[in-house]
Amino acid sequence: MKQQISVVTLGTADLSRSREFYVEGFGWKPIFENEEIVFYQMNGFVLGTFATSALAADMNRTDLTTRSAFALGHNVPAREDVPLVIEQLIAAGGRLLRKADSPPHGGVRGYVEDPDGHAWEIAWNPAWAIDDDGHVTFGL
Amino acid sequence: MKQQISVVTLGTADLSRSREFYVEGFGWKPIFENEEIVFYQMNGFVLGTFATSALAADMNRTDLTTRSAFALGHNVPAREDVPLVIEQLIAAGGRLLRKADSPPHGGVRGYVEDPDGHAWEIAWNPAWAIDDDGHVTFGL
Repeated sequence: MKQQISVVTLGTADLSRSREFYVEGFGWKPIFENEEIVFYQMNGFVLGTFATSALAADMNRTDLTTRSAFALGHNVPAREDVPLVIEQLIAAGGRLLRKADSPPHGGVRGYVEDPDGHAWEIAWNPAWAIDDDGHVTFGL
Repeated sequence: MKQQISVVTLGTADLSRSREFYVEGFGWKPIFENEEIVFYQMNGFVLGTFATSALAADMNRTDLTTRSAFALGHNVPAREDVPLVIEQLIAAGGRLLRKADSPPHGGVRGYVEDPDGHAWEIAWNPAWAIDDDGHVTFGL
């Protein structure tokens, strides 16, 4: 099978609060939206923010939690962008988890959670190439 | 900012059990692995399965849960592939959440959780184009 993820779906308690975080904080533009979902076209896949109750019904679960063991990473072109983006995300409704600092493997990163508690790592990692279309290639 | 996610990181209690799910179930090949992380090169970004304790320390949280309000989607080329892939994932340590059926918006989908409780939607959705490199474009 292709090493492929088509969509990353985040459960969202309040869609307009979440939309503000992604549109104002990251500066992203929805490609589609209605009263229960907002889709963003990403680098080779789609990000969906979906009413948590609708996501739970779709995946046939009733026990959805937040603050879970996963994170999404957004890489920026320069070291000094990391704290700037973190600041912008907090201004748009995010909450700081970790201030920008240097992990043992190099580069710079910090963490912000979105208004629903989904964790975002904002990183500068020169080993991972990002092409003009935003496609990211693993590197050491 | 680019509409870009560089990495999706999943917290993993038992890395070899998780590796078996992704390698045997999906047939994916790691691009890098050590004793606390396995990376897979995906369609325009990287998937990382990371020891949950290390992820928690990295994101400066102590309260990580599982069975959370998010899902990852893998789209397959044909309707009849959906139940086959679901079966393969279960054989590799996954657990069925929802058998393949047709959602209101069309296509076919089912859900399986990985050994750590992370939800995967397996879907056939002819409206979303997938190119030869696995890059997915939103469509209606």
